[in-house]
Amino acid sequence: MAYEIERKFLVVNDKWRDHASSSDYFRQGYLTNTDKCSIRVRVSDDMGYLNLKSATLDIQRTEYEYEIPRDEAEEMLERFCEGPLIEKTRYYVRHDQHLWEVDVFEGANAGLIVAEIELDDVDEAFDKPEWTGQEVSDDPRYYNVCLVKHPFNEWDKS
Amino acid sequence: MAYEIERKFLVVNDKWRDHASSSDYFRQGYLTNTDKCSIRVRVSDDMGYLNLKSATLDIQRTEYEYEIPRDEAEEMLERFCEGPLIEKTRYYVRHDQHLWEVDVFEGANAGLIVAEIELDDVDEAFDKPEWTGQEVSDDPRYYNVCLVKHPFNEWDKS
Repeated sequence: MAYEIERKFLVVNDKWRDHASSSDYFRQGYLTNTDKCSIRVRVSDDMGYLNLKSATLDIQRTEYEYEIPRDEAEEMLERFCEGPLIEKTRYYVRHDQHLWEVDVFEGANAGLIVAEIELDDVDEAFDKPEWTGQEVSDDPRYYNVCLVKHPFNEWDKS
Repeated sequence: MAYEIERKFLVVNDKWRDHASSSDYFRQGYLTNTDKCSIRVRVSDDMGYLNLKSATLDIQRTEYEYEIPRDEAEEMLERFCEGPLIEKTRYYVRHDQHLWEVDVFEGANAGLIVAEIELDDVDEAFDKPEWTGQEVSDDPRYYNVCLVKHPFNEWDKS
């Protein structure tokens, strides 16, 4: 069993950029999103990935990820995915003892920037960087699978 | 791109049994079945598999298959699948130049026996064994993904 324990925060300023060590460009889509699991296909610069996650709305989710040939992942993105794709650049930012992932979205989700930290334990302590704001771990609107159907640009932000 | 070209026939007698060289016992379920693809998880005696197939109702379908750890496949069968599982024993039967797969279903699909042959080309010639009957390649009722929701035992065979 692989568990993913993840906390997610909005990013409120650009100070993280000075500490970004590297980045990846991702294109991803969803093959399905049932009441039991979501299945994602992702293409990075040089790899393809299949990812299966339990549908639990919680910071702890069961997750499986498998590397697959990039060209097969590209074909699945084109032929099997429901709705538009998500495009984002992921920056890796070291802060205190942890590696944060800062996702800068493009296209219909442009303007949205979130920071995620993966923990080994739900109670693990971590230092919250000054460039992070509100926690959104439990807010389904920020799930990537939801950003496909209800992209950030269409949200009512009044 | 991986294409699967498969033809499927009902089995009308037991004469294939004398020519079966080996067999596997499969348990499988479906993670999803959209209008674009179906995603199957399967457990055999010693392996797990993820399989993604285009939803085309045709003898030629796009297909991807990946080996995954058996224990992870078991967890997915238990937690992520929709509806009951399919259980069957697959026998491998050499006939003429081809290897046939004869699936003997159990449980809610007991009584159903089908034989499949995989071809390299849609026009490839093959000898139809005397133990096969009607072709059902294009009949969606015989798709495994349909046998989950409408098992053989519930069919109106009058």
